[in-house]
Amino acid sequence: MKYKKHVFICTNQKDAPKKCCGSERGSALVDAFKASLKEKGLLSEIRAQKTGCLDVCAFGPGLVVYPEGVFYGNVQLSDVEEIVESHLIGDQAVERLVIA
Amino acid sequence: MKYKKHVFICTNQKDAPKKCCGSERGSALVDAFKASLKEKGLLSEIRAQKTGCLDVCAFGPGLVVYPEGVFYGNVQLSDVEEIVESHLIGDQAVERLVIA
Repeated sequence: MKYKKHVFICTNQKDAPKKCCGSERGSALVDAFKASLKEKGLLSEIRAQKTGCLDVCAFGPGLVVYPEGVFYGNVQLSDVEEIVESHLIGDQAVERLVIA
Repeated sequence: MKYKKHVFICTNQKDAPKKCCGSERGSALVDAFKASLKEKGLLSEIRAQKTGCLDVCAFGPGLVVYPEGVFYGNVQLSDVEEIVESHLIGDQAVERLVIA
């Protein structure tokens, strides 16, 4: 597998009255994940990137970690370091943020 | 897992002299995958969506299928049906398009 973990963070922007990841700090999350991975020297094995709608709008901002296919919702910037350390490095999902 | 297969197709557009998936039919590929999956009634179990740069620009247009993490490159619109039938439904990657 090209990447040990591959994180897709929704940055979709839509013209709708519904909540939307892109307008709810999606892009800031992408930057925060990339900065954390870069600082730890992990960019070659773990990739975090923006993506389109993941169809979890109601739980946004949303992201998914593959290959496990674990979806996270309502992710705050302050949660990024915990997801990186616990899940991306330690292989333990951060259960309190997982979308059931 | 929310989706049996999750396909991320690069539609990134960049201002660079290098080849770039978004300008090389990335969006048309997203539409073609979605149309095929819809026609087959598979949208609830298989998702195809646009994504940002997958870092396989030289092989673009590129896409990745998870949970396997198989990357495809130089995908033509005429390849979509084969990827859907063989890989997304039949679990056999289309080897001639796989990025090694």
